Amino acid sequence: MLKLFLAANTCALASHIALEEAGATHEIVRVDFRANEQRKPEYLAINPKGRVPALATGRGILTETPAILAFIAQSFPAARLAPLDDPYEFARVQAFNSYLCSTVHVAHAHRMRGIRWADEPEAHLAMQRKVPQAVGDCFALIEREMFEGPWVMGNDYTVCDGYLFTLSQWLAGDGVDINRTPKIAEHFKRVGERPAVQRALADEKRELQSAA
Amino acid sequence: MLKLFLAANTCALASHIALEEAGATHEIVRVDFRANEQRKPEYLAINPKGRVPALATGRGILTETPAILAFIAQSFPAARLAPLDDPYEFARVQAFNSYLCSTVHVAHAHRMRGIRWADEPEAHLAMQRKVPQAVGDCFALIEREMFEGPWVMGNDYTVCDGYLFTLSQWLAGDGVDINRTPKIAEHFKRVGERPAVQRALADEKRELQSAA
Repeated sequence: MLKLFLAANTCALASHIALEEAGATHEIVRVDFRANEQRKPEYLAINPKGRVPALATGRGILTETPAILAFIAQSFPAARLAPLDDPYEFARVQAFNSYLCSTVHVAHAHRMRGIRWADEPEAHLAMQRKVPQAVGDCFALIEREMFEGPWVMGNDYTVCDGYLFTLSQWLAGDGVDINRTPKIAEHFKRVGERPAVQRALADEKRELQSAA
Repeated sequence: MLKLFLAANTCALASHIALEEAGATHEIVRVDFRANEQRKPEYLAINPKGRVPALATGRGILTETPAILAFIAQSFPAARLAPLDDPYEFARVQAFNSYLCSTVHVAHAHRMRGIRWADEPEAHLAMQRKVPQAVGDCFALIEREMFEGPWVMGNDYTVCDGYLFTLSQWLAGDGVDINRTPKIAEHFKRVGERPAVQRALADEKRELQSAA
């Protein structure tokens, strides 16, 4: 059975949503970031990067959200979570997910993970000051150039939608008003109402409450 | 015909190498970063992100190295540049490429592209000071945990190899001694001797000489 290692309020939600959308039998394993579990030997043996998500399959561990999303889409083709039979359309899905991973998530991460890229606290503060602009610019570009509507890729819901939803959740904390990008704001609301997304969010809420 | 937009000394080399390895008929279009061409309306109409690579196909433009590499591998299956028929093995390729794109390249980019994440020059200097450690840690992790040998994924050359080669080229400039990771150092030398890679590098060298 697939086993997804995740933590609340991380990008791992995108993989969780994809598993729910796929109807995949799976188990969720919570990694406690407050206890720094992601840096302990037990978890590093699963994912040496010390990050989430990690997806344990019968054959080994997969990491990196774009790779996991494509794997879920390919492993559960009946769920039609990506255009699998058309390399060009599949590449468009991958390009979108790669942009979220390598540019949007990275822009966001400068708010709380500055230690990855500088040692001085002043530099971390400088990074934090730029986050609203950097993240806001990314979302403006998505709204203007990438978002097809009604779903990210056009007429069909794909793994891109749950991933965009996951990062849209972070906008308020990043100091970006989601209503500056009305198509994404409407998308965020609509994706949040999907039963698969509600299930993943309810599971996350239970974790947060039990930890409180 | 496929048309690859690129600039010298960028990650676009990975896509160029993949096209050469695939034996794909293609045209190279140089974007002059010194003249800031990537920010001009003509190029922004091609890639609104203002970055390279961008791959013009008969159906539209693709961006993001991991997406372009998977597209080339899928479009030229005879070249066997990725394990296309096995979702798990394909996901391992994608996870490696995603790590290069979202973590390794990003660590490197803090040396010269700090303006993306902070406005203050002092913060840019702080970022630059951390680059040798951040990039060095990434390569140490690749050497220890990801690199299978003799190629990144094991017995078969894949798009991962040209991509790792591309980023390995940057190590000296980032203040990282490639010989601290002997498997990657040997891989760098061996990939650099492949005819496809030599062709891509020779093309880049001609560009740099004509601009000098």
